[in-house]
Amino acid sequence: MKDEKGMRVAIAAARRGLKSGGGPFGCAIFRHGKLVASACNRVVKTNDATAHSEVRAIRLAGRKLGTPFLRDCTLYSTTEPCPMCYSACHWAKIKRVVYGSFIADAARFGLNELRIPAEKMKRIGYDKIELKGGVLREECLELFKGWWASGGKPY
Amino acid sequence: MKDEKGMRVAIAAARRGLKSGGGPFGCAIFRHGKLVASACNRVVKTNDATAHSEVRAIRLAGRKLGTPFLRDCTLYSTTEPCPMCYSACHWAKIKRVVYGSFIADAARFGLNELRIPAEKMKRIGYDKIELKGGVLREECLELFKGWWASGGKPY
Repeated sequence: MKDEKGMRVAIAAARRGLKSGGGPFGCAIFRHGKLVASACNRVVKTNDATAHSEVRAIRLAGRKLGTPFLRDCTLYSTTEPCPMCYSACHWAKIKRVVYGSFIADAARFGLNELRIPAEKMKRIGYDKIELKGGVLREECLELFKGWWASGGKPY
Repeated sequence: MKDEKGMRVAIAAARRGLKSGGGPFGCAIFRHGKLVASACNRVVKTNDATAHSEVRAIRLAGRKLGTPFLRDCTLYSTTEPCPMCYSACHWAKIKRVVYGSFIADAARFGLNELRIPAEKMKRIGYDKIELKGGVLREECLELFKGWWASGGKPY
């Protein structure tokens, strides 16, 4: 399947999250071209600092597939995964991670903590995950703009 | 309070986890000297690759305190946090992280993926979290030995 298809599902998840007052992030996990799970950021709503969209999608996918290990899965994230989410992808044995905007883009909107790029995490962690950034980046940047315009701010 | 007190609660959590077939890891979170939450690793039991003891304790503590932000809290972990758990501590705004055995110790028992030390994560992430390792290290190493002797293996 085309990566744009997966990213559009992640963008839709982010939009749902924005509508309910969440952060401008969304994620979708596909396996053999089929959607397994999608999620938005729900840190504040659920009082869970780990409830980034990628971590939530990984949890949902594990529950759905009946295994913590999401081999053969591709994870689509509207923004480059933070080190927590990158590492969660590693532990979940996800094959590919595709993202839209970059950590440096997020930083321009004030989201500038723990800015360790995924490629750096891969290199220093001797990891094998496949990474691809910049897919539908402009649409993903629009999420930040919408969030910013509606008064969004980093915690 | 003394750090040994917190670590003993984390060790007890790890022992509970080992008894139910989990990995040799435990965690406890204290606030102003009072226990807020403790947890063991439950990755396989719950089909959740993110269910490391630290992530689970952070989620439980957030639910208990009614906020994702665990300011003024100290997290005790039987082993140096992996990059996922280190970053989860950052996002949860935890003040101090105290651990027993080191990532290099875990590697000797075959747990040798994504070996990025917490001090390195702190440095490259320009983070401020206080770190202290080696508290009750010998007792924490016993957890690995027990797990290893009972046929434990990395996934």
